[in-house]
Amino acid sequence: VALVWKAPGEIWERLPNLKAILSLGVGVNHVLGQKDVPNVPVARLLDEHCTQAMAEYVLHQVLRFHRLDPDYAEQQRQRTWQFHPARIARDRCVGIMGLGELGQAAASMLLSVGFRLSGWSRTRKAIANVSCFAGDAELDAFLQTADIVVCLLALTAQTEGVLNARVFAALPRGAFIINCARGEHLAEDDLVMALDSGHLAGAALDVFRTEPLPDSHPFWLHPKIHITPHAATGTHAPSAARHVAENIRRLRAGESLLNVVDPAVGY
Amino acid sequence: VALVWKAPGEIWERLPNLKAILSLGVGVNHVLGQKDVPNVPVARLLDEHCTQAMAEYVLHQVLRFHRLDPDYAEQQRQRTWQFHPARIARDRCVGIMGLGELGQAAASMLLSVGFRLSGWSRTRKAIANVSCFAGDAELDAFLQTADIVVCLLALTAQTEGVLNARVFAALPRGAFIINCARGEHLAEDDLVMALDSGHLAGAALDVFRTEPLPDSHPFWLHPKIHITPHAATGTHAPSAARHVAENIRRLRAGESLLNVVDPAVGY
Repeated sequence: VALVWKAPGEIWERLPNLKAILSLGVGVNHVLGQKDVPNVPVARLLDEHCTQAMAEYVLHQVLRFHRLDPDYAEQQRQRTWQFHPARIARDRCVGIMGLGELGQAAASMLLSVGFRLSGWSRTRKAIANVSCFAGDAELDAFLQTADIVVCLLALTAQTEGVLNARVFAALPRGAFIINCARGEHLAEDDLVMALDSGHLAGAALDVFRTEPLPDSHPFWLHPKIHITPHAATGTHAPSAARHVAENIRRLRAGESLLNVVDPAVGY
Repeated sequence: VALVWKAPGEIWERLPNLKAILSLGVGVNHVLGQKDVPNVPVARLLDEHCTQAMAEYVLHQVLRFHRLDPDYAEQQRQRTWQFHPARIARDRCVGIMGLGELGQAAASMLLSVGFRLSGWSRTRKAIANVSCFAGDAELDAFLQTADIVVCLLALTAQTEGVLNARVFAALPRGAFIINCARGEHLAEDDLVMALDSGHLAGAALDVFRTEPLPDSHPFWLHPKIHITPHAATGTHAPSAARHVAENIRRLRAGESLLNVVDPAVGY
């Protein structure tokens, strides 16, 4: 059994008896994108700690925009005392792109606080109190519902660059974007244009096409972009170890593994 | 019936037939502190919108500290890519001072996200999943539990200046303070000393002894203080109007009013 994050590609030919590949992270795009990966089950790491941390990250970033944190921080720098009436959560709709385990956990936490929720996914889902949209045909209808969009999609050939100028234009004016999936989901120049035109009001980004984000990258100092360094969630050893041990036990017992990936779909 | 916020003191003698005073805000310290207030019921405005907005404010400020927002904002200004492992909510205890309607609403929302909760109040309360402490004798035991302290006390002679050097010293090193009750709860110089010594890690303040906060006040530019301009909650006309109308109806019907204050206690 190989426990891997970003394994060097040449490692696979030296593991002739491999029975399974267990990713030590949520994503598997770095494994599935390699050449000569053995034809064995590949499982993602999706434990309770990781899911909870991601849901909290999303909630925090949603509340930052919902409660005008960037505006109040700027007012503090200017020593300006100006009150803005507080909207409450039920007056705001959060649209989640990607309704897998992470998207559903985030939706559930946001619902418990009182937000309205919509969701968009490749295949149709039915989730209590979430307006669910599916597939390309319903993408625009989904976007029109969302005051704040959260990307929690898996990275596949179909979702690469999905956060682009066409999608931004379909959002209501003043919408916010939160990307905590993969940097490749975002068309970076399109985002800067949508922010600078005033159509989008802000973005919180945890992932980037190049990580660490290069010193010279314009995102660092953009006044409407909030950056976290791929910190939304991470592998928590005590929780991850239990998940890995359980998958090894299942393998030995001939049972199906937890969180196995379909290579044809990419997640 | 007088609907008031900060009414001029001389108004009361001109209202000889007054049957009730309905505050248009949550606090009534500005009414009870006046001279010659007629001996009629005084009711606070505590409607669903106001309570929800306050609970959301508390949750947002707790998440700001819990998820290291001030650190990541500073890293962004410095273009520094440095990941800090995410703690999850159940690893953090939020201590709420004041377990009235607002304190209980905040506790309930924080519990739903997964935080551990403790609470302190003048009279003993019993709230599911909240470790409740009461009175001066149990204040230190309460403070020792709290990674993040939220002040939602009413302002009375007993609670004026309750957030002071002695209380800060009893908190664990690295604790955070959130004050969204009244500016008079806080000993301002004590807070700056506790932050500058490194004992406290940060403070989020929505209320101040003088509002608007004066231009020259040192809080504005303190790197560990986050300021909002008395914006945690506010009177929302559609919701407030229903509350006021219901209290007038009750008065006419001879029923007891909602949210009546005990002048002897101060809230």
